[in-house]
Amino acid sequence: MTRNLDQLSLEDASLRDGLKWSQTSPGVIPSWVADMDFPVPQAVREAVTRRAETDLGYPSWLDEPSVGPLAEAFAERMETRYGFRPDPGHVRSYSDINQALQVLLHLTTRPGDTVALHTPAYHPFLDTIAEMGRRLLSIPMLPDGDGWRFEVPDEPAAVLLLVNPHNPTGRVFTAEELGALAEYAERHDALVLSDEIHADLTYGPQSHIPFGTLLPARTVTLTSATKAFNMGGIRCSVAHLGAPAVRDAVNRQPAHIYGAPNLLGVEATVAAWRHGDAWLAEVLAILDRNRRLIAERLPSRVGYRIPQATYLGWLDLGFLDEDPAAYLEREARVRLNPGPLFGPGGEGYARINFGTSEPILEEILTRISTALS
Amino acid sequence: MTRNLDQLSLEDASLRDGLKWSQTSPGVIPSWVADMDFPVPQAVREAVTRRAETDLGYPSWLDEPSVGPLAEAFAERMETRYGFRPDPGHVRSYSDINQALQVLLHLTTRPGDTVALHTPAYHPFLDTIAEMGRRLLSIPMLPDGDGWRFEVPDEPAAVLLLVNPHNPTGRVFTAEELGALAEYAERHDALVLSDEIHADLTYGPQSHIPFGTLLPARTVTLTSATKAFNMGGIRCSVAHLGAPAVRDAVNRQPAHIYGAPNLLGVEATVAAWRHGDAWLAEVLAILDRNRRLIAERLPSRVGYRIPQATYLGWLDLGFLDEDPAAYLEREARVRLNPGPLFGPGGEGYARINFGTSEPILEEILTRISTALS
Repeated sequence: MTRNLDQLSLEDASLRDGLKWSQTSPGVIPSWVADMDFPVPQAVREAVTRRAETDLGYPSWLDEPSVGPLAEAFAERMETRYGFRPDPGHVRSYSDINQALQVLLHLTTRPGDTVALHTPAYHPFLDTIAEMGRRLLSIPMLPDGDGWRFEVPDEPAAVLLLVNPHNPTGRVFTAEELGALAEYAERHDALVLSDEIHADLTYGPQSHIPFGTLLPARTVTLTSATKAFNMGGIRCSVAHLGAPAVRDAVNRQPAHIYGAPNLLGVEATVAAWRHGDAWLAEVLAILDRNRRLIAERLPSRVGYRIPQATYLGWLDLGFLDEDPAAYLEREARVRLNPGPLFGPGGEGYARINFGTSEPILEEILTRISTALS
Repeated sequence: MTRNLDQLSLEDASLRDGLKWSQTSPGVIPSWVADMDFPVPQAVREAVTRRAETDLGYPSWLDEPSVGPLAEAFAERMETRYGFRPDPGHVRSYSDINQALQVLLHLTTRPGDTVALHTPAYHPFLDTIAEMGRRLLSIPMLPDGDGWRFEVPDEPAAVLLLVNPHNPTGRVFTAEELGALAEYAERHDALVLSDEIHADLTYGPQSHIPFGTLLPARTVTLTSATKAFNMGGIRCSVAHLGAPAVRDAVNRQPAHIYGAPNLLGVEATVAAWRHGDAWLAEVLAILDRNRRLIAERLPSRVGYRIPQATYLGWLDLGFLDEDPAAYLEREARVRLNPGPLFGPGGEGYARINFGTSEPILEEILTRISTALS
């Protein structure tokens, strides 16, 4: 590594486009955009640069629906890290998981159909369910000691939209929990759309279990290198269509209607997955310290359960008289995501992004603590 | 420029992914993939590299449907070069024009509806019309002295899919011709989808006239920097939705279902449009010589009308007993696009790509001439 990732100052971080997000509120530290402050792995920079220096023309995998190198790198990584053996021929690419979800809901469900989802939830998924006229079946995440639990619903659903590791709580579902969800999906003949975008950001001793290992023929696995490797702008995600009916539905569509993956996104993804793991280990070590630092620094009346994955903390600030994010932006000059955005169970909470260096996180936590004291 | 674009050898060109296309047929020069052999403008390389070095995260225009900087650079270029003043707020981005066409046909027409298109035609458009169950109304391009003419059809169409400059003939439609087509569209209340991707590759004294200047409220203008600036892999194209009904239909869709533009594609496009014109002038000078070189070098029995735009030549080889592309691949070891791919009027033709350096084009033309002698 040419840069010490954990010594980034606010000035370094302001090189990043991310800080443009705060230009409308000078002096406010943005801790809400779901990016990290770290520069991408060297291998990604080199792959993108090399491609720009040689050829940005049509790639040789132009007409392969599975996007040859992307599908291969995905399948390789799933097997090596998680013991999941997806079929590269069943891979399709979408620009991001939000697109994949909308396409798959459009092709496999109808307005009025029920989508089961743990809540609070990644808010664009709630928006999609509402916008497309599907019905949300909330599976509440319930505070439970140091962690979270949930109860499998009785009510059926057409789709189980699983977000594992879970956002915003950072919960990594256990084999038992996934088994219960699999049993639920089988009982109600539900399609499982499994968003596993945060899998590579799981902290030991927890380990990530792909849902595709449980119910291969009922599961669509959605993932992307953009979250763990900090490159949300490249727009390159993967859908492994384990369910034959979903493959058929996708293959019946006009070939270009949902777009085509971009060369630089594919190059960056393949480089990250194949050559980014040393960088990832370094980042995970920083994030692991950061997730504990939050617990140490915040006043004890802030409810905080250390996440098992992700760089996102879910803070219970229900003792405040107003929306915590609004309060903290005004009083602490730190912008978090407002909890109510995340749907049922979000009231009184705010989401913090700790994907930054220790000096910046210290500043954020000091500001918050001071504002709450 | 750090490299002399017109002295590329086959060895230089083999740095490009493009030559991978010929790996299945060693020794065959590919002159069919619709890329050029030239490296992209310095400004594009720099923009992509700079972005990879700083931040590949979510861009600040994330939630702007018109993709701020892309729409602005497009509008600026249209006004400066062509006197066309599109509204940046009416711009949407698609990964490529094939996606844009499929989305727009899907949202504005029904199976069985008629799409008028000059033929021979860019073959993926023919595939789309067939695949989506729309009906092709062919507007034949008729050889006429040194050029081509066409007759406006009597029959109505729901959509006039205009490709101007025309591919594969390289014809640039005149103000009179476009006026007649506008009158046709008005008479039959047809939506005009105007693919102008080759506009920046127009040779003087012809000049390109955007169809949006004729019928602003009936026209969707489709373009991209990928063709003129040789970066088909970046997947970034623009649709200017001049027609209010089309805007409404697009805006009623779920926000993410057709994907999102990628940061590197937007950076590359904006850099090309704002800072690529010196490179483009150099490339056009090479292409201008090349289009004439073909006329000089090929045997006179090859029918060849010097194109007014594009780096594509449409060769009449109808005197051969078999498909010209198959014949030339076998006998000349040069791969062209088979004419029949381009639909009605393609029989007996082949399309040559002259977007390369003079030494390579000389080799291609020598091989073809020898095989035909």
